[in-house]
Amino acid sequence: MNNSFNKDSKIVIIGLGVIGGSYAMALTGAGYTRVYGYDTDPNSMIKAAEDGIIAGIGTIDELLAGADMVALCVYPDTAIECIREISPFLSAGVIITDVAGIKRGYIDAIAAILPLGVRFVPAHPMAGREKKGIEYADSNVFKGANFIITPVGVSDEAAVEAVSKMAVDMGFARIRILSPQKHDEIVAYTSQLPHALAVSLINSDEEDGETGDFIGDSYRDLTRIADINSQLWGQLFIGNKDNLIKVIDDFEHQLKLIRQAVEEGDNASLEQLFNKSSARRCALNSRK
Amino acid sequence: MNNSFNKDSKIVIIGLGVIGGSYAMALTGAGYTRVYGYDTDPNSMIKAAEDGIIAGIGTIDELLAGADMVALCVYPDTAIECIREISPFLSAGVIITDVAGIKRGYIDAIAAILPLGVRFVPAHPMAGREKKGIEYADSNVFKGANFIITPVGVSDEAAVEAVSKMAVDMGFARIRILSPQKHDEIVAYTSQLPHALAVSLINSDEEDGETGDFIGDSYRDLTRIADINSQLWGQLFIGNKDNLIKVIDDFEHQLKLIRQAVEEGDNASLEQLFNKSSARRCALNSRK
Repeated sequence: MNNSFNKDSKIVIIGLGVIGGSYAMALTGAGYTRVYGYDTDPNSMIKAAEDGIIAGIGTIDELLAGADMVALCVYPDTAIECIREISPFLSAGVIITDVAGIKRGYIDAIAAILPLGVRFVPAHPMAGREKKGIEYADSNVFKGANFIITPVGVSDEAAVEAVSKMAVDMGFARIRILSPQKHDEIVAYTSQLPHALAVSLINSDEEDGETGDFIGDSYRDLTRIADINSQLWGQLFIGNKDNLIKVIDDFEHQLKLIRQAVEEGDNASLEQLFNKSSARRCALNSRK
Repeated sequence: MNNSFNKDSKIVIIGLGVIGGSYAMALTGAGYTRVYGYDTDPNSMIKAAEDGIIAGIGTIDELLAGADMVALCVYPDTAIECIREISPFLSAGVIITDVAGIKRGYIDAIAAILPLGVRFVPAHPMAGREKKGIEYADSNVFKGANFIITPVGVSDEAAVEAVSKMAVDMGFARIRILSPQKHDEIVAYTSQLPHALAVSLINSDEEDGETGDFIGDSYRDLTRIADINSQLWGQLFIGNKDNLIKVIDDFEHQLKLIRQAVEEGDNASLEQLFNKSSARRCALNSRK
């Protein structure tokens, strides 16, 4: 255990997928000297070592020995099993952080099975790629992005500090502390709902195959995230069921207002809706 | 009248807003020597002349005398009135083209009141800006974009050729010929529906003002076009009522499939929907 987390602290990344690989790349790139990675697929470990984004490979017990920080970069539905497997090798005082896009319930389940003395700092790096696998890892996606921490009972102040420092060093622009409840409400609206809309938009196309000849920037922008990691996003959607259903219903209400105004030829109501959306979008543009 | 349309043909742009101004900029930039513009707001004409994107200004009768091509760059609901006003000054053989994002009905109404001998080539330059006014004119938005022509009874072949040449010279990458019906069906899905979704997404936000602190690229992408020219888009939506309502309903059906799968915790169905959207989005990426 090392209370003063620094660039010589030992960091072990569990799961060298697109996010774990990007963590390794960002941390090694930022000058951290003891970044290690573990993956059930040995090819991912070999690639990470060959690319020079981790300091070395080994068995899980070797890697975890003396670790100061463990970043759990696995799919939400394998996290519990993963914690059970690594628990025997965790030293007291080690900090565990994760990257899952949902927090409630999920982090409570993790906190409940952690060995005594392990500190847990749930986190959500709000950046990523639609593609899976270490070959898509790219630390540039973190530059300027938001990093959310949702502390729980076993997150002490020094541990939150350490994870924050790591995030800043990886290039994140803003570290924000939120309750797990608030986090899940916000991502339902800002992230999950946009993905649901993009998927529904492209899936509602006719099958005649002509659309591609006539699309413009707006259609491209609105469907970019329809190319989605289906395994991950299924877990995120279902793990945040209540919040996601609420924002879908709120959205549908707004779409119905447009549909109704169109049906009734009610230009005044349409203009009102458009003026509201324009004002909100301008307000968004004016902030970082 | 000039049957061989060329860079010394006289072109008059009616309406120097963001699209008319961009036409003037693109045509003058492409080496057309006799590009003129008219606007009911004299300041727009003066700005266009000062910026050197038109060859001169004048009264509407002076400008239209001997014109080979007239580009009607006004809002759909003022087009008929505009045609009535300019009709007395149109020479036989002149080509009229327009830029409206809806075609059925609208172009029939125009064709019905055009003086005998005037040729009309309805067109939709699929590029633009959300902002209004000549100060936002920018011919770069045409580069690589689609230009759709929807011929009617009074579009002869030479006139379609002339408008196509002009579009290519302005930088459009692809000229496509469509029926007005097909055009309206396609834009309902590829352009109007995305605008309806962007508006509904941003309008469904809670009023607490916290969202802006937690958004990522996906939310930004999906709401960019929520900053909308409310006057224009109200007319476009209502002018394409039947098609727009159909695509809204198709979209809502897809969103309901997601909502239902989330509610039932049905990960398999979600993955299936996501795999479909991913395949479609990849297919889109692989084409120009």
